[in-house]
Amino acid sequence: MFSVTVRDHMLIAHSLRGETFGPAQRLHGATYVVDATFKRAELDSDGIVVDISRATGELHAVLSELSYRNLDDEPALAGMNTTTEALARLIADRLAERIHAGAFGEVERALDGLVVTLHESHVASASYERQL
Amino acid sequence: MFSVTVRDHMLIAHSLRGETFGPAQRLHGATYVVDATFKRAELDSDGIVVDISRATGELHAVLSELSYRNLDDEPALAGMNTTTEALARLIADRLAERIHAGAFGEVERALDGLVVTLHESHVASASYERQL
Amino acid sequence: MFSVTVRDHMLIAHSLRGETFGPAQRLHGATYVVDATFKRAELDSDGIVVDISRATGELHAVLSELSYRNLDDEPALAGMNTTTEALARLIADRLAERIHAGAFGEVERALDGLVVTLHESHVASASYERQL
Amino acid sequence: MFSVTVRDHMLIAHSLRGETFGPAQRLHGATYVVDATFKRAELDSDGIVVDISRATGELHAVLSELSYRNLDDEPALAGMNTTTEALARLIADRLAERIHAGAFGEVERALDGLVVTLHESHVASASYERQL
Amino acid sequence: MFSVTVRDHMLIAHSLRGETFGPAQRLHGATYVVDATFKRAELDSDGIVVDISRATGELHAVLSELSYRNLDDEPALAGMNTTTEALARLIADRLAERIHAGAFGEVERALDGLVVTLHESHVASASYERQL
Amino acid sequence: MFSVTVRDHMLIAHSLRGETFGPAQRLHGATYVVDATFKRAELDSDGIVVDISRATGELHAVLSELSYRNLDDEPALAGMNTTTEALARLIADRLAERIHAGAFGEVERALDGLVVTLHESHVASASYERQL
Repeated sequence: MFSVTVRDHMLIAHSLRGETFGPAQRLHGATYVVDATFKRAELDSDGIVVDISRATGELHAVLSELSYRNLDDEPALAGMNTTTEALARLIADRLAERIHAGAFGEVERALDGLVVTLHESHVASASYERQL
Repeated sequence: MFSVTVRDHMLIAHSLRGETFGPAQRLHGATYVVDATFKRAELDSDGIVVDISRATGELHAVLSELSYRNLDDEPALAGMNTTTEALARLIADRLAERIHAGAFGEVERALDGLVVTLHESHVASASYERQL
Repeated sequence: MFSVTVRDHMLIAHSLRGETFGPAQRLHGATYVVDATFKRAELDSDGIVVDISRATGELHAVLSELSYRNLDDEPALAGMNTTTEALARLIADRLAERIHAGAFGEVERALDGLVVTLHESHVASASYERQL
Repeated sequence: MFSVTVRDHMLIAHSLRGETFGPAQRLHGATYVVDATFKRAELDSDGIVVDISRATGELHAVLSELSYRNLDDEPALAGMNTTTEALARLIADRLAERIHAGAFGEVERALDGLVVTLHESHVASASYERQL
Repeated sequence: MFSVTVRDHMLIAHSLRGETFGPAQRLHGATYVVDATFKRAELDSDGIVVDISRATGELHAVLSELSYRNLDDEPALAGMNTTTEALARLIADRLAERIHAGAFGEVERALDGLVVTLHESHVASASYERQL
Repeated sequence: MFSVTVRDHMLIAHSLRGETFGPAQRLHGATYVVDATFKRAELDSDGIVVDISRATGELHAVLSELSYRNLDDEPALAGMNTTTEALARLIADRLAERIHAGAFGEVERALDGLVVTLHESHVASASYERQL
């Protein structure tokens, strides 16, 4: 199995609902350094999993819809507790939608899966892995 | 599949038994930067795999029982070659015991697995993955 | 010249005032991974610049007053544009106050300077260096 | 499952064939920071997956055959598009050959798999995983 | 003193002239992860050293003139041994030219200095520091 | 001013004397990831500060005299509290001795200074800077 990983980041504000979160129930924020990993059993005729610059562009497009925003006020996220885990799934699902919509052309059929990891600090991260 | 990873470290002395280890047969030591990864198929009602601050606390508790010690003198480790791999398993097993003893409350039933990685330098690490 | 550096982090929300900041004028947030460096010409009788665990504790205390907050609403920061640079100075100055108030005991007289660096992502950081 | 990872690097020149690669069709180069991961279900009698210094030596031997070279001129790579993904497989396969040729002695029979990851910058990497 | 650091990278081929360089006399290449640090005694009225997105853009523009190229064939570098140190100075000087040409507007007068660091692997880097 | 930095590591056991050190008074150990930085105002005729492979070799030689040892038992360190700071100075001084003894040939006269940084974990480090 092959994989390619690209990295970008986003800066967001949010608050978390539930006593579990202690001080994180207050409005605060985070930098998420985001790794998106694309998995594929065989390489294409160019010898790649996916074009790295295109993958970088798609990840950036997904993150741009979230970055520099207060996620508490985003209609698309209404009712969602925007934990690091939930955001990892959201970003993976949005990348998958773009892939299914043809963002990578024919590559879609060949990709096996996707992993999105959000590093929220130097000591904590969360990941979500899904099939395509 | 979701996962959450938290990081901490420990400082220990030890020696390794066996010609394989060359100069590491002498008493020396290491900083282990330790990553503990918790895996789970679905998020709980708060939208998390496990509470990051609780996970950090449990990992710290496990490492505190080993840190600032000469592992050659620890009764609990008598007869064990304290390689990086063996310590990764030891820490994973001790975390699993705490989880089974209720450290994370109801979370136990939902967790699928655990990975512990010990970085012993900028060029070497070892991991142990187990189910829960 | 000797120095000791300790690392911690904080998670804040804020917005920046001025057209220069483009989308960062909206309410968003950041994780700041913070390095505090203490400088000293000679070591003390224990052979240290400053006790690492005490330095870690003082840095944590300063960051706790800012973390998990919306800096736009903090009375102590009213009128301040909370850029990464400005926060680096704020944290350095608050550490200096604690040092002058005796947080490190006699060490104060011997310390020459302080550098605080805030890493706001994997591609950008800001620092402030001052004397003591 | 246990694993051990060792890190080294190589410096190569190459060009990539295909419009997909844009400016990377020109002769350029890269530092690949290379992680090789060895996987094994059970530890050996020394308590290890594989001897870290031997693993480091084998990885270094494989990388030495590629480093400080223009891969476009290497007869052994003629006709191959030397993408990061393809180089990850090449290195994994060459490590596997060495393992099968006895580089690690009896360890061969016990090793389950191998992962090779090439970090081509702070924002992109590629991996290849195979069985042994 | 304040400073702001931004990071980008470039991928180049080159060879080095002189017996000192051993195998690096052959045509090979490198990824340089490049940090550019801008220093300034006082912040401007926005509370910054320099606009981070503009600094990132200027660094990217300078690196784009070198990336994906064989430096041995660049007319502008004819006769230059393109060591990591020499490239650090080249990039710093080109950034300084852009600053003096007004790339950052009025900021030029206030900037005190510039440091450019090139990381050529996980174990080696070179820097050049100059005044403005 | 130019500089070149090379990285290596050592694994040692030791204990620290003095109540300040709390649990670190017990025999424990550490991995020190060590950066040695060589500073020089002008490049030599090859366009370098110092040959990176020679610098790496000298650093490795100095660290080999300490690694895989219990520093409490080293006659050369008798009476010394082997704090991170003190070890940074020891390594810098031993590198300086090698430089003055001709390890880098004529380079000695041109080098201005040396910085040695020891990273003892992902959250703490110490440095010593000296002239040559």
